[in-house]
Amino acid sequence: MPSKNIAVILSGCGHRDGSEIHEATLSLWAIHKHGAEYQCFAPNVMQHHVLNHCTGEEMPEQRNVLLESARIARGKIMDLANFEATAFDGLVIPGGVGAVKNLCTYAFAGPDCTVNPDVAHAIKAMHQQGKPIGALCIAPVILAKVLGKVTVTVGQDAATAANISALGGNHAPTWQGEISVDQENKIVTTPCYMLDSRVDQIGAGADKLIQAMLDLMQLPSA
Amino acid sequence: MPSKNIAVILSGCGHRDGSEIHEATLSLWAIHKHGAEYQCFAPNVMQHHVLNHCTGEEMPEQRNVLLESARIARGKIMDLANFEATAFDGLVIPGGVGAVKNLCTYAFAGPDCTVNPDVAHAIKAMHQQGKPIGALCIAPVILAKVLGKVTVTVGQDAATAANISALGGNHAPTWQGEISVDQENKIVTTPCYMLDSRVDQIGAGADKLIQAMLDLMQLPSA
Repeated sequence: MPSKNIAVILSGCGHRDGSEIHEATLSLWAIHKHGAEYQCFAPNVMQHHVLNHCTGEEMPEQRNVLLESARIARGKIMDLANFEATAFDGLVIPGGVGAVKNLCTYAFAGPDCTVNPDVAHAIKAMHQQGKPIGALCIAPVILAKVLGKVTVTVGQDAATAANISALGGNHAPTWQGEISVDQENKIVTTPCYMLDSRVDQIGAGADKLIQAMLDLMQLPSA
Repeated sequence: MPSKNIAVILSGCGHRDGSEIHEATLSLWAIHKHGAEYQCFAPNVMQHHVLNHCTGEEMPEQRNVLLESARIARGKIMDLANFEATAFDGLVIPGGVGAVKNLCTYAFAGPDCTVNPDVAHAIKAMHQQGKPIGALCIAPVILAKVLGKVTVTVGQDAATAANISALGGNHAPTWQGEISVDQENKIVTTPCYMLDSRVDQIGAGADKLIQAMLDLMQLPSA
């Protein structure tokens, strides 16, 4: 049986303005650990902004989401505009503030946000083909925005949970290293740094998320 | 017994011009997995250059090693100039080309390289206090340059092994996920992306490296 192939959508490189590096790296680690393969993608757009990761202040720079994401992917990355759902068995979106500033506008507009068209297309296409989608940290809000009635977790954050409800979704509270599995919609989510976490707890959540996605790939499509 | 505290020296964020992100992240993961704590450090200097991680070409930008390293450390990072060996039980240096362009000049000068004074000071101080030092990927060449007669591994690369010998060190060949332990000098090294590796093999190497360092911390000083 050929290895399962999982697409990973990155949003830059660094938790304040891009993908959270530990969540992204440990997603790739978990994919390989379970004998699957990955291909990273990112939209070829400019970052919303560049933040100093010591002070949080904005820097007078511009960076490209695809090029910065390539740092995490070690160059093994494709423009999300070229994503084809038929080539993949699952889709993962790590967190970091880049997920809600570069992949959608949730950080600014909450439930009224817009989603990058290529991101929305990838999520819809995978969902329509009955393939599992995983999201970490804050990224589950994108799934609620695009798919509506899905069950996801962002840990214990009441304000984000209320926004997920406003989008038609359900929020399942979780703690460090735990996952939420929406069997019907084949959605797996884990809170990661939405909770104060140690790095090995990020690894535990990513490990369970990938295992659950691989299990869901064995189920017949709804 | 208080947790062991391990200092980690980063060299930027991205394998072509800074710290290799998987090696750095999985070192932090392994430290937490084994119940220890970490504090990241980096020199407050400009990167040698900034490389496009898709094409490998130089970009017309300047970035600071400490600020870029903060992306991996999630802001929990200190200027290496303020490193005090007495505060730590061990020291880890992840790889990536940044280790041999920003922490020393090995990428340009080979065995004739110079080492950033704060990096050299941190290595010498830890070694003099009988504390274990771990290095991943290409970073072991810095230990050979600073300490001379130590046994390290960079995997199977003959040219790098010859340079380590020229520096007075010994090279121990290893494969993916393996470590070299120099008991006498309390030096632990692992080849990581000096070999074509899967991400879980980087995790296995980092895991063994941290375990070996914690074991060495139990030994009396030489």
